[in-house]
Amino acid sequence: MYSKYFLMNEEDVKSYVQAKIKDFSGTLFSDEIGDGNLNYVFRVKNEQGNSVIVKQAGPQARISEDFVLSTDRNRIETEALIIEGEFTPSLVPNILLFDEVMSCCVMEDLKGFEIMRKQLNVFKTYDHFAELISTFMAENLIRTTDFLLDPKKKKEYQKRFINPELCEITEHLVYTEPYINFKEQNILTSGNEEWIHSFVYKDTALHLEVAKRKMQFLTEAQALLHGDLHTGSIFINDETLKVIDPEFAFYGPIGYDVGNLIANLTFSWARGLAYEEDEFVSWIEETLLSTIQLFHKKARSILATSTEQFAVYTALLDDYMDRISRDAFAIAGIEMNRRIIGLAKVADITTIEPIDARITAERRCLKIAKECILNKEISHIQGYIKLLQKYKNGVLI
Amino acid sequence: MYSKYFLMNEEDVKSYVQAKIKDFSGTLFSDEIGDGNLNYVFRVKNEQGNSVIVKQAGPQARISEDFVLSTDRNRIETEALIIEGEFTPSLVPNILLFDEVMSCCVMEDLKGFEIMRKQLNVFKTYDHFAELISTFMAENLIRTTDFLLDPKKKKEYQKRFINPELCEITEHLVYTEPYINFKEQNILTSGNEEWIHSFVYKDTALHLEVAKRKMQFLTEAQALLHGDLHTGSIFINDETLKVIDPEFAFYGPIGYDVGNLIANLTFSWARGLAYEEDEFVSWIEETLLSTIQLFHKKARSILATSTEQFAVYTALLDDYMDRISRDAFAIAGIEMNRRIIGLAKVADITTIEPIDARITAERRCLKIAKECILNKEISHIQGYIKLLQKYKNGVLI
Repeated sequence: MYSKYFLMNEEDVKSYVQAKIKDFSGTLFSDEIGDGNLNYVFRVKNEQGNSVIVKQAGPQARISEDFVLSTDRNRIETEALIIEGEFTPSLVPNILLFDEVMSCCVMEDLKGFEIMRKQLNVFKTYDHFAELISTFMAENLIRTTDFLLDPKKKKEYQKRFINPELCEITEHLVYTEPYINFKEQNILTSGNEEWIHSFVYKDTALHLEVAKRKMQFLTEAQALLHGDLHTGSIFINDETLKVIDPEFAFYGPIGYDVGNLIANLTFSWARGLAYEEDEFVSWIEETLLSTIQLFHKKARSILATSTEQFAVYTALLDDYMDRISRDAFAIAGIEMNRRIIGLAKVADITTIEPIDARITAERRCLKIAKECILNKEISHIQGYIKLLQKYKNGVLI
Repeated sequence: MYSKYFLMNEEDVKSYVQAKIKDFSGTLFSDEIGDGNLNYVFRVKNEQGNSVIVKQAGPQARISEDFVLSTDRNRIETEALIIEGEFTPSLVPNILLFDEVMSCCVMEDLKGFEIMRKQLNVFKTYDHFAELISTFMAENLIRTTDFLLDPKKKKEYQKRFINPELCEITEHLVYTEPYINFKEQNILTSGNEEWIHSFVYKDTALHLEVAKRKMQFLTEAQALLHGDLHTGSIFINDETLKVIDPEFAFYGPIGYDVGNLIANLTFSWARGLAYEEDEFVSWIEETLLSTIQLFHKKARSILATSTEQFAVYTALLDDYMDRISRDAFAIAGIEMNRRIIGLAKVADITTIEPIDARITAERRCLKIAKECILNKEISHIQGYIKLLQKYKNGVLI
């Protein structure tokens, strides 16, 4: 049984779980609950009300049969969750089974969690967020660098997480298409087209910096990244959070994960401003500040335990963290641009009403983005918070 | 036959070639001619006087049974030769057979060639060298970057050339041990110990820059490198040259190969100065200048054919080549340091007599090396040639 891959439906998944998972041999109930573009996700319950999640990679993306992706992404996601589970067991779902043939995994069903983006969009705040997400980033990113892993083991990991197809999505959607309006696929908010044309499409200095960052993304194997660390990849409740969906995991620049998080919190901030949710806006600013400060503090604590011979030089670690910080803000800018201009938008911005407020929010983010990418002085979180202040009440063209 | 690995002797190799290679089924003659540390190399001749080379990786390094290395390095070497053979067929030996089980390859016997280092050490010059080696570097390095290879194909290559063991040798011998006198294994020329102690061991600013470069070596997957591109890896005659021994091949920073070549030509230059071989010294200077200028010119021609969307920006390619150039000089400095201070020395310097002249040559190289590593103005070949002039007749401490 299950010696050859096939795409499972709700009935197949029940038989699969019956055969494979302890305490799930009796009558089962199954629902397909996936809403992503790439995978099939089932919740399977037993009669006692216990449940597990089965996630299977389909041979094509769900949005289009023409968009064929290797099911190897399920292996990458599962192996990344297992490694993250070693460093931060409480911050990722527990893996019960990985089936390489079926390209599926069975994991714990996270109950009582919400997708963080949805909650932020109704201005809910979480006081534990900065503490927990900074731990997630510091532990998983710094511990997979050459400073903490033996360089030979790191190269084994690097090999396992060579991720050509999902990296290609990022190379195209994040680093290229927004700037060149590839196949005229960019969809701009009505009324903002001309402004974006002149502010983004025509700014070759901006393109040049993005292009250099693209080269960095293509070449710098610094740490095992989550690869898609936005607020839609975080399950949260009032006690804790779980980071999910690391199918974009690969060895890349640490600033990519950190920058994605900064950008996506900034969308929440821009939405808060649009709806004059002052307390929420302040909470986002404080959260950005403490998340990044805690990340740096924890990263330095971990780096202090490095056995790399040169790690005794404080100046080396200062330089290392400074580069990560600069990378993060530049990449935050690139993420902001692509979510406003490119194909994959975020509800934080697209659902702002009326449209004038949405246009203001978009321009605010794009202006912040450009400064992040071009202004070398945006190199630490205090500078970034000042930048937010500048565009908070400032006149917008 | 040959379904399980064993280390071959001269008799075994004859049977092997008889079984595997066309026109070699009759009586054969075999000699072990290897003089390296890692591999066994046999020349196998038939009665017609034709010959082939069989290179087999042993399970231990030849210098010490304690130094165990994976025989996978033979696969890496052979696959690198095959890829280089696509881009520069006339500049590498032709591969006749690769046997993954036996960890050996059979290649053409290069007749009438000499190891370039040996010839340079008796001050022989080669007018074709700059033209050919610049082609070798530009073609093999630039064509394996993300600018020329499809990024998905590049990642496949990157995976095949993850080379943990041989990279580890470089990480230790080149980037670490010379500076910290690891296990007191550095062997310094008698009479030069104190000077090197104070000039290298005590200079923490130097260590810091080397440490940053080590991080780059560990993380930057820019192109498929030869990985050991010194004058001892080049077979040469009056007509042409062949680059051999790419067992250190991996995806790394382009400046590593270019810098190694610069450093090793500089050893020849320092030897020429010691023996007052003025014409040879001038030839080395001209060769350095034209090799690097031709490399940049050819690299730009190849980059001009890139299908990367941002490659239309000249400023991007300028920045890319400028970074490669800066990397190359810094890494040249690191190679010079390790060959004079570290475990693996070069005959160019160690055979200089009398010892005072050797000490002068060492200090000259170490001073040039330090400026390459610390002085950001050493960023192009004209600046480097000026640096050579400065230390040519300058007072040495």
